[in-house]
Amino acid sequence: MALPKPLKETAFLLRQLPQIGPRQAGRLAVFLFRNENLRQELIERLKGLNTGVHICERCFRIAEKSPCALCSDKARDTAILAVVEEDTDLENLESTHSFSGSYFVLGGRFNPHRGAPEEQGLRIKELQARITQDAKKLHEVILAMNPTVEGDILALALMRTLKPSGVSLTRLGRGLPVGGEIEYADEETLKSALKHRG
Amino acid sequence: MALPKPLKETAFLLRQLPQIGPRQAGRLAVFLFRNENLRQELIERLKGLNTGVHICERCFRIAEKSPCALCSDKARDTAILAVVEEDTDLENLESTHSFSGSYFVLGGRFNPHRGAPEEQGLRIKELQARITQDAKKLHEVILAMNPTVEGDILALALMRTLKPSGVSLTRLGRGLPVGGEIEYADEETLKSALKHRG
Repeated sequence: MALPKPLKETAFLLRQLPQIGPRQAGRLAVFLFRNENLRQELIERLKGLNTGVHICERCFRIAEKSPCALCSDKARDTAILAVVEEDTDLENLESTHSFSGSYFVLGGRFNPHRGAPEEQGLRIKELQARITQDAKKLHEVILAMNPTVEGDILALALMRTLKPSGVSLTRLGRGLPVGGEIEYADEETLKSALKHRG
Repeated sequence: MALPKPLKETAFLLRQLPQIGPRQAGRLAVFLFRNENLRQELIERLKGLNTGVHICERCFRIAEKSPCALCSDKARDTAILAVVEEDTDLENLESTHSFSGSYFVLGGRFNPHRGAPEEQGLRIKELQARITQDAKKLHEVILAMNPTVEGDILALALMRTLKPSGVSLTRLGRGLPVGGEIEYADEETLKSALKHRG
């Protein structure tokens, strides 16, 4: 792209954000250049992004206080713990209103090409500590990783790490997504759907 | 999303960028929160986004000087003018190395639901002035809009506006994209491919 240097450099930075490709990064830089007001507002918001924001000391999610509202809620079941990679996974599980247990946020997507989970900044030691601490009351840990190759590798690694704790380890069910069609389902999904029929 | 307010507000702003949906905006806000260094760099880059950046007085593209390198280039053919919506369209046409004419950037994507092109900030008056000014040497104006409903409406509007100038008005050719398959081509593309065969 023959864009002027400040736009090129901005596009280069934007490419480091998740799911932003080189073309979209260029388009975003041009858009931000043309929209002075939006740019100024964004600068202000980014400056204040961590003002009044905490990482919960129990579940490590991004929250307005620590411990967060979920971890302080006496009605939540502390015998069951869902381990997720990202805050957005937690939000999505929570929006089902079908889970009343506790959470633990590892704090990033696992990339098998970038070394062990702990080397990528995922909170493996903190998870072990939490499980050891809650060992007496904890019945089940759901390894709520994505049903992808990356998610499977991470879940296997966590199973190995957490096995000595003796707690029951489960994963989210696999099968046809609701509204999905058998005709377009891939082989692995169909296999899972057959296996977990009922 | 139950994200803390500063993250929610940042996500809300990010949603105003082109091709960023609500989910991705939330994900980007979380990512920017977690990556302090990237966030600080981005703030600095956005602050300096228009330092040393100009809008070319001839073609209105974003450039390092005005008139821009293309408009100052004596080797470019000023008898043929390509009118594009966005800078990124110009960059892409230029990367083909198949066009040696001049350009004019309207400065935005046309949205038929948001009123007339000039009401959306597209440089229609400036385009008319440029064409009037260059009338004697100008042989052809290529209305290089996207082959979409929006692009077609804009091109038709420009044709009406520019017809009195007497200059020859053309559009980019339509047909099967190189590497595309007849089996998957839509009806309109196939019709165009048949019509423009050769």
